[in-house]
Amino acid sequence: MTATPDFMQQALAQAAQALFLSNPNPRVGCVIVAPDGHTVLGQGHTQQAGGPHAEVMALRDAAARGHAVQGATAYVTLEPCAHHGRTGPCCDALVAAGIGRVVASLEDPNPLVAGQGFARLRAAGVSVEIGPGADAARELNIGFFSRMVRGIPWVRMKAAASLDGTTALANGESQWITSPQARADGHAWRAQACAVLTGIGTVLQDDPRLDVRDVSTPRQPHVVIVDSRLQTPLDAKLFVPGRNCLIYTASDSAARAQALQAVGATVVHLPNAQGKVDLAAMLRDLGRRGINELHVEAGYQLNGSLMREGLVDELLLYLAPKLLGSGRGICHIGPLTALADGPELVFHDVTPTGPDIRVCARFAQRSAF
Amino acid sequence: MTATPDFMQQALAQAAQALFLSNPNPRVGCVIVAPDGHTVLGQGHTQQAGGPHAEVMALRDAAARGHAVQGATAYVTLEPCAHHGRTGPCCDALVAAGIGRVVASLEDPNPLVAGQGFARLRAAGVSVEIGPGADAARELNIGFFSRMVRGIPWVRMKAAASLDGTTALANGESQWITSPQARADGHAWRAQACAVLTGIGTVLQDDPRLDVRDVSTPRQPHVVIVDSRLQTPLDAKLFVPGRNCLIYTASDSAARAQALQAVGATVVHLPNAQGKVDLAAMLRDLGRRGINELHVEAGYQLNGSLMREGLVDELLLYLAPKLLGSGRGICHIGPLTALADGPELVFHDVTPTGPDIRVCARFAQRSAF
Repeated sequence: MTATPDFMQQALAQAAQALFLSNPNPRVGCVIVAPDGHTVLGQGHTQQAGGPHAEVMALRDAAARGHAVQGATAYVTLEPCAHHGRTGPCCDALVAAGIGRVVASLEDPNPLVAGQGFARLRAAGVSVEIGPGADAARELNIGFFSRMVRGIPWVRMKAAASLDGTTALANGESQWITSPQARADGHAWRAQACAVLTGIGTVLQDDPRLDVRDVSTPRQPHVVIVDSRLQTPLDAKLFVPGRNCLIYTASDSAARAQALQAVGATVVHLPNAQGKVDLAAMLRDLGRRGINELHVEAGYQLNGSLMREGLVDELLLYLAPKLLGSGRGICHIGPLTALADGPELVFHDVTPTGPDIRVCARFAQRSAF
Repeated sequence: MTATPDFMQQALAQAAQALFLSNPNPRVGCVIVAPDGHTVLGQGHTQQAGGPHAEVMALRDAAARGHAVQGATAYVTLEPCAHHGRTGPCCDALVAAGIGRVVASLEDPNPLVAGQGFARLRAAGVSVEIGPGADAARELNIGFFSRMVRGIPWVRMKAAASLDGTTALANGESQWITSPQARADGHAWRAQACAVLTGIGTVLQDDPRLDVRDVSTPRQPHVVIVDSRLQTPLDAKLFVPGRNCLIYTASDSAARAQALQAVGATVVHLPNAQGKVDLAAMLRDLGRRGINELHVEAGYQLNGSLMREGLVDELLLYLAPKLLGSGRGICHIGPLTALADGPELVFHDVTPTGPDIRVCARFAQRSAF
């Protein structure tokens, strides 16, 4: 029997409800369907970290509705977990509930655990089918896959520019090139990220909060600052009580580090040979700290450094229907001497966003994972 | 009885077949439907200038198929003409053939003749309905409408850039930023234009042919050069035998003008107070010369001049999925001191074109016509 695509679509829609919620856990949805093949008994999605996973939510939903799930099929967008984290293993919960069949989109991407959930289900006599909805389920968790497979976050660089690529006038004016609709859309991308990264130049010039305001979210992303010389002011607006702030630096100043730690920041010393922050090492550190999607909102210099070092996976570019001529560009590259020297991307999506368009393009040179 | 939309769609599809063909005449399609309301008796579209119009082609098609058209309905995408040009008036031909009813998308935009075709049809007892397909028919003839109503061409500026707005590297390298598919698409836009315009800078630097090569076309657009000092070389590649070449200048040099005329160019002296070509006057002159769509493929300076003088209607921008950083931009504007000083556009269409995207945006400040 082939999986009915509608139920996996429904499970994916459930998973999407965890977009702003489950970080750093993956966004997973689960739909439990009766042995008759058409009655939905329960459904659910991953809750916030430490809370129940999708399968347990769906089982609870079925129980709350008074439904037995003996012999039912569970459609789930990722392999049920087999390990004891803050919650018990989902595969055991499914087996205990009497689920007869599991249809899953994907294996768990963590090479250390991949397949163990399926193996435990099969050992308990549960029939397992893998594959339906795989592309969408992976896309929804691209940051989680990146961290599990590559050990580093998925790096998404956000910028807003005129059609001729200007992000700020020569006099610095940049608010607002794009529309309120584009800015709200940008806040939704912040909300789904584990962390928002910026550079000391932006902190000193704009003193941004870099939190999620224009959309409703149950959690705020962490904030990360690349600050080679520890110049972040102690009263910077991005120090919000209760919010994690990581500052990567090449500075040896213990006094500055202590002062910043006193206002709640975590200071990480990761210098490279040039006395700047080692950005590649920073990504590995962020991976270790559980950052799936890193949302970059930085300026010309830091954008250029990340780009030149080949550390960006995706460009999220809002283009306003304006021409602004000379001014500040998206990122500091070049001057190049050959067209082939510029980073190549692949368009992934173009979406009208209010009067603007949102262009999502991915860097071709990033290795597949 | 309401018009059946399908027949007008079919007439519009006929009209689209005249896209590269009928300039400077409008692209018009005609479908003749039997009194039974569903049998197509004949169809056709405008031929090259001096050839038959759509209505006559459709009547001939019906005759060739042995169909009588007594009492039939003619669906036509523009008001049938009422004047004697190189062909007889189409409304008389429809009346003479016994057409009982005409459904037309639009009135003729020429204020001197608008409505006369419909009046003659009604006077002859033909029932007339106006409106179906109006938006599409007008869009297909936006240059013809511009010339008829405003007296100037529809000015479409074509550019190709990286995602960060760079059209050439600092060392001048610009071939090729976009893909073969984007270049072929650009040739199709040239093919539908009455004329291609460039500046002397581009002629001297690139020596382009600016003809249509990558798509099949029955005619080549004229070529127009803005050449304030008459520096166009006599052996420039854009001098193609049999092709009209117009050079607009501010130079008084009779010797240079005569030399250029000797190789087939028409030299037009239109200086402004600054000793440059008066670009607004040039557009009026091009309108008088029957140019509907003016396809601009120029460089940073001339693009900027046209833009700053508010003479551009549409930007046709191919964006390659690349970042090139600093280099030459699309057009010379600014430095601006306020974001609101840049020209505002409205996105009209975004279409994937090979690996690139084609963005069509229209200038908001151009007056409606």
